[in-house]
Formats: sequence, C-alpha cells, structure tokens
Amino acid sequence: MAVGLPEPEKILPIAGIKLNAVSAGIKKNGRDDLVILVIDEGASCAATFTQNAFCAAPVILAKKHLKHASPRALLINSGNANAGTGETGMQNAIQSCQWLAEKLQCSHNQILPFSTGVIGEQLPMPVLQNGIEKIINDLSKDNWLSAARGIMTTDTIAKAISKTITLDGVEVTISGIAKGSGMICPNMATMLAFIATDAVIEHDFLQHCLSTAVAQSFNAITVDGDTSTNDACVLVASHKAGNEKLKANSLEAQTFIDVLDEVCQQLAQAIVRDAEGATKFVTISVSQATSKAEANNVAYTIAHSPLVKTALFASDPNWGRILAAVGRAGVDKLDITGVNIFLDDVCIVRNGGVDAAYTEEKGQAVMNQDEIIIKVELSRGDESTSLWTSDLSHEYVRINSEYRS
Amino acid sequence: MAVGLPEPEKILPIAGIKLNAVSAGIKKNGRDDLVILVIDEGASCAATFTQNAFCAAPVILAKKHLKHASPRALLINSGNANAGTGETGMQNAIQSCQWLAEKLQCSHNQILPFSTGVIGEQLPMPVLQNGIEKIINDLSKDNWLSAARGIMTTDTIAKAISKTITLDGVEVTISGIAKGSGMICPNMATMLAFIATDAVIEHDFLQHCLSTAVAQSFNAITVDGDTSTNDACVLVASHKAGNEKLKANSLEAQTFIDVLDEVCQQLAQAIVRDAEGATKFVTISVSQATSKAEANNVAYTIAHSPLVKTALFASDPNWGRILAAVGRAGVDKLDITGVNIFLDDVCIVRNGGVDAAYTEEKGQAVMNQDEIIIKVELSRGDESTSLWTSDLSHEYVRINSEYRS
Repeated sequence: MAVGLPEPEKILPIAGIKLNAVSAGIKKNGRDDLVILVIDEGASCAATFTQNAFCAAPVILAKKHLKHASPRALLINSGNANAGTGETGMQNAIQSCQWLAEKLQCSHNQILPFSTGVIGEQLPMPVLQNGIEKIINDLSKDNWLSAARGIMTTDTIAKAISKTITLDGVEVTISGIAKGSGMICPNMATMLAFIATDAVIEHDFLQHCLSTAVAQSFNAITVDGDTSTNDACVLVASHKAGNEKLKANSLEAQTFIDVLDEVCQQLAQAIVRDAEGATKFVTISVSQATSKAEANNVAYTIAHSPLVKTALFASDPNWGRILAAVGRAGVDKLDITGVNIFLDDVCIVRNGGVDAAYTEEKGQAVMNQDEIIIKVELSRGDESTSLWTSDLSHEYVRINSEYRS
Repeated sequence: MAVGLPEPEKILPIAGIKLNAVSAGIKKNGRDDLVILVIDEGASCAATFTQNAFCAAPVILAKKHLKHASPRALLINSGNANAGTGETGMQNAIQSCQWLAEKLQCSHNQILPFSTGVIGEQLPMPVLQNGIEKIINDLSKDNWLSAARGIMTTDTIAKAISKTITLDGVEVTISGIAKGSGMICPNMATMLAFIATDAVIEHDFLQHCLSTAVAQSFNAITVDGDTSTNDACVLVASHKAGNEKLKANSLEAQTFIDVLDEVCQQLAQAIVRDAEGATKFVTISVSQATSKAEANNVAYTIAHSPLVKTALFASDPNWGRILAAVGRAGVDKLDITGVNIFLDDVCIVRNGGVDAAYTEEKGQAVMNQDEIIIKVELSRGDESTSLWTSDLSHEYVRINSEYRS
C-alpha cells in the first residue's frame, strides 16, 4: 500500500500529444500493457537512460533513434523488459517500431520503444502486433491516466501529475506519468517516466532542463539499490503553447525549470511512496560533507542498509543501526565526535554519542509516523544531499519471491 | 535454520588456555552471556578489528591494551554491544577489565574486552560484576563448546572447530569459535571469532598468519552488507606444543597457515550458513577481472542485491536479476559481450545474452538446491574473487523487525 499517495487527479492534456492504452495480452492478469504517446510534427524531445551496462534492447534502440530523427511516437509495453534477450530481442524491438511506423506513416527511426517487466524473456511478437493494430484506433489527448495505469508493473497506484505556469503571459502546461516500485536505484537516469509540455523550447535547452531535474528527483531515490536495465525518462515539448522560445538564463526559463523540478520530484517521490511493500516514506538528508559524493555515499549507505530498513518497518527507534551505517560508509578519516544524527527534530546522536536529552519515547514517537526524516551532520564541509527511500517489509520479500510465479 | 551446518563436534583443548561461560543476566532469555578465555603467561596474541568508524568502546580498548601488554584473558559479553555509548561506555569497558584483572591478579591492560548485541544501550554493570565473580570459579580447558554458545546472539547454532597438524614431529592443535548471523559484512576484520593454538610462533608472524587467513575467510562473507561496530577476531598462541618456533617461509609455517586458513574459512562459512533467516548457502565467484577490487565489486553487488537474494529464497531461476546486478556494478566500460554467467555448471548467460542451451528446467534444478554457486566471467583480465552469502527470506525481516521487542 502506497504511503501518503492518493490516486492522481485529472491530468491536463498537452496540445500536440495524443495517447492510448490497451491490453495486448503481455501481462498475464489482463490489465493494460501497451501504451502509445503520439507526437505532432515539430516537437522537441529530451531523454535520459539507465547507466546499467546490461541495458535493454529498447533502451539501446531508443538512444539510437533519438540521434537520427525527431520522434513521432513513444511505444511502451509493460510485463516484459526485453532485457538480456540478445540479438532476437533487438530484432523484436526494431520490428515493433516498424509496425507502429507503418500505421503512423513515419520512419521507424521516429518511434522510441520502451519496455518494463520480467528480464530475460522474449517479447510475444504476435500478441504485440495485435496490440499495435488495436491501440491506434482510439488516440485521445485525454488518455494520460489510462497511460499511467498501462505502464504499471508491481506498482499499486498510478503516478501522474500536471502543473501549469504562465510564460510571457501565455499558459504553459507540463504533464507527466511514471512507473516503478522495485528494482529502483536510478543512476543518472530513472525508471520509466514520460513527461510532456506544450512549451516552445529548443532541443538542447530542453535536454539541459531534463538532466538537471532528473538529478534532483529520479536520481535521488532508491528502494533496493538495484539499478534497472530499462530505466528511461523522456520529456517531449510540443511547441504548441505559443510562448516565446525559452532561452537559457531567462526569468521564464527559470520558472519552467522550477516547475519541471517539482513535477519530476513528485513523480520520483510517488515511486518511493509506492515502493514494493513500503510502509514508510523516508527522507535521508546528509549535510556538512566535504563533497557531494561523500554526502551521497553516507545517504545511500543508510538507505540500503537492510538493518535500518527493517527497523523502519518495525517502527523501532534502533538508532544504533543508523550509526553503524554512517560508520561503515567509508568516509575518509571520519571523526565521529563531529557526527550528529536526528530523527525528524529529535537529536539521537550528538558529537558521536547518544544525545543527553534523547529518550526512547521521543525516538518512538517519530518512528511511529508514516513519514520520517533521518538527518546526518558530518561537521566536515559544506556539501549536502537528500534522497528518498522506503522500508524493508515482509511484503517486499513476498512480492519479490513470488514475482514470476 | 542453518544451511548444512551440524552442531559442532568435540573441540580439542589447547594447552595453556582455560575457558568458562555463565549466564550473568545481560540476555533477557537466561542463556549464557558472559565468557572468559584465560591465557597462561608467555603466550602471543594477534587480532583484527572492525573498520567501522563508530567502533565500539571494547574494540577501542582492546586495540589499546594489545599495544601495551601481553593479554592474560579475553572477557566477552553477548546481549549488549557497548557501542554508541560514549564516555560512559568506555568507562564501563575499563571497569569490567579492572574487575577481572583483580581476580586474575594481573594488570587491567592484560584483559581484552569484547561485546556483541544491541547497539546504544549501556552495559548493566552490577549484573556484569556478579557475572565476573561467578565465571572465574569453574575454568576448564574443556569449555570451548559452552564458550561458543555463550557468545551467540541471533545465532541458532554454535560455531566451533578444531584441527591438528604435525610440525617438527610434534602435534599442534588449533581450536576456534565464532559468532555472527546478522550485521555481517566484515571489512578487514570479522565478527567475533576466537581462535587458539598451542603452537610456538612469534607475535609478528602470528599476526601475519591471522591477517592473511581473515582476508580469505571472514572478509569474504556478507549477509546484509552491514559492517558491525564490534567485529573482532583474535588468535592466541600458547606456545605449549613444543614445536620449534615457526619461521616465515618455512615448510612448517606453510602447513600452519594452510590449516589456519581452513579453520577461519569453516568458521566464516558457518556464520553464513547460520545467517539470519538463511535458507540457501551461496558462493559467488567472479573471475577474469582486471583487478581484485573490480572482482570484489561485482561479487558484492550480486551478494547485496535484495532482488537476487529474494529470487534465491524463492528458488526462482530469475537470472535477469543477476545480470542486472553485474550491469550496475560500475565496471569501467564493461563490454557485456564478454560476460558469461553460470548457476553451478549451468551456463545462463554467454557472451552477454541468454545461452542457447539454457532451459528454465536446468536453472530450476540448480536453484532448488540448498547450496548454489553463482559464477561470473568478465573476459577482462586475470584477477578473481570468491565470497559467501545467504538469501533474503521472510525470516530475515521477522528477526530484524522484532530484534529489540
């Protein structure tokens, strides 16, 4: 059950973008598993992808297509990752792009393919072909929510958000959807997230905006430390809003970047709130580090500790496990007398030892909450980081030991 | 339940070493929680300790005492780690050494203290003092097994082993005990392990033998990636066997090192076989790496992946999770077409893709076993590594969410 995450509200359409979702039959449970997002000509498209060396066939192909042509459609299937599938997997990804390109009368280079689901199984091609026949019939600008549901795998709730801003007196909209619940530790990339805006914005600056936003959102979450083979985040600008073209360093550009950051952070946090088996939503903030890398190292060591995560699940203020994680994070010559640790505003460790004013009752009160902030001060420098993670519950083990059965 | 780990057989006494274990009342369940190992004068003692920056008071004190005097006793309590306990914790550790030193009529510098259990709680000093009064009464050279039981925390089975060798026509014995089940990822150190031999061997060479053996045993295991604050491994040589003093590079020294390696590896493997909630004993071998660090990085990434660990628990040959872990291990410019992955002798991935001869049935047959070898070849160089780990089960989550309740 997702932590503090309601069903998404109405998602605003983006001029120049139409979507659809159908059940092709790739998922065994009959839910929607094929989604397309069709883009009018003249749009720009930016994207970030997983850094996993075993990246999936559709990731390799989407990167290649992005270099050669301006995308006209995103083709996304859930239920099968088409990863670890070798040359056959690549041929299948190419074939699916060709099938959709014929329907849309464009080049297969203009289709970006995405897959998510089980690794190591080939796509069921006849099923996919039938799905493509079906899906192009009911394209609509209002299908964002069904698209958000169609890309889900172990997600329990759809993740979608819209924001509007005014640029040069013109209303501009950003809408985005994301999926992801397990195998979450994006590395300079993200789980599947598809965001669109009607803003007029040139490609290079669009990519800059996306990369910046992703670093502070999808790249700042972890569920289990397992970077996926299929992560991707795409931002399409349809150029239909009628604003003056956004330029770097302008006030309008900053407004756009701020709202894009917000959209990405809310989608990224939604993934953690709906993490496999999650009962807690945990923010880990590390400050006073000598470098961003050092701060990240400490934050991720805490976030990935199975002992910290099971203590969070148990609402047990067993703070010694947080302290042990900080101590093993490999910080060079860490002077523990400079280390302070807080649960929300409750100081548990001050100058390396238990705080004089700490009581089990105070710690318990914070741990009983659904949302918890773990704050670590290192007294070494000025760099800081924040990331979001979940706990480790029985449900996580159940989901991941029964995933393929 | 431990995987393939029977109750230890009779442990051979070591001349010059006496032990005892009692229930002082630190553990709530009434089990033995205080152990001493008393050493005759003239012995040598080598040790390795945790690299966790938040190392416990007894670790700091034991390191200091080792520098200043020749140890006459090890004082070990379970049920309380005396870690994260600040200045009071240090005073308590010193006080316990003083109490035992009075009884043994030696300097408090000659007592090495060790603690294991919950982090962040102060030792119950009156209880400990009573325990020390009691424990010195029934010292015996035959108490190794009760000592092995007395140092247990979440362990379900005692870990102990003896070996004999002949050096210069003289029989030499090595006996050792260890504890550990969770918070296991020793870093240049180990969980608690106490090993003794009657061999005549000088201190520096003894330390060299221990450090070498630990690197290939206690430092090659991981349960949950959580390096403890209290890890320690001690090797005492009582010099009573009557062999000629062991010299580096001699045939006898090599015989001694080989058997010490065997003792350490069996104790280290026993910790993994009895890992919290373990249902599988897994060997991860990575070869053809450019460096030992690279091989270790890949091996630990697989060993720490919650997705690999839950698949192992489910006996699910979901090998895509192993492939994804290799891919995210941060190997510089990894050419995936050089990667081969095996489950025991079954090739699952060859040249980066699923092996042509692989079938789900073959993978399932290996995964159904209690003991599994995951073998990764990188085709990059000549370095290799092996480590041992366990799976992630419901029982792991139960144990660690209920640990303090």
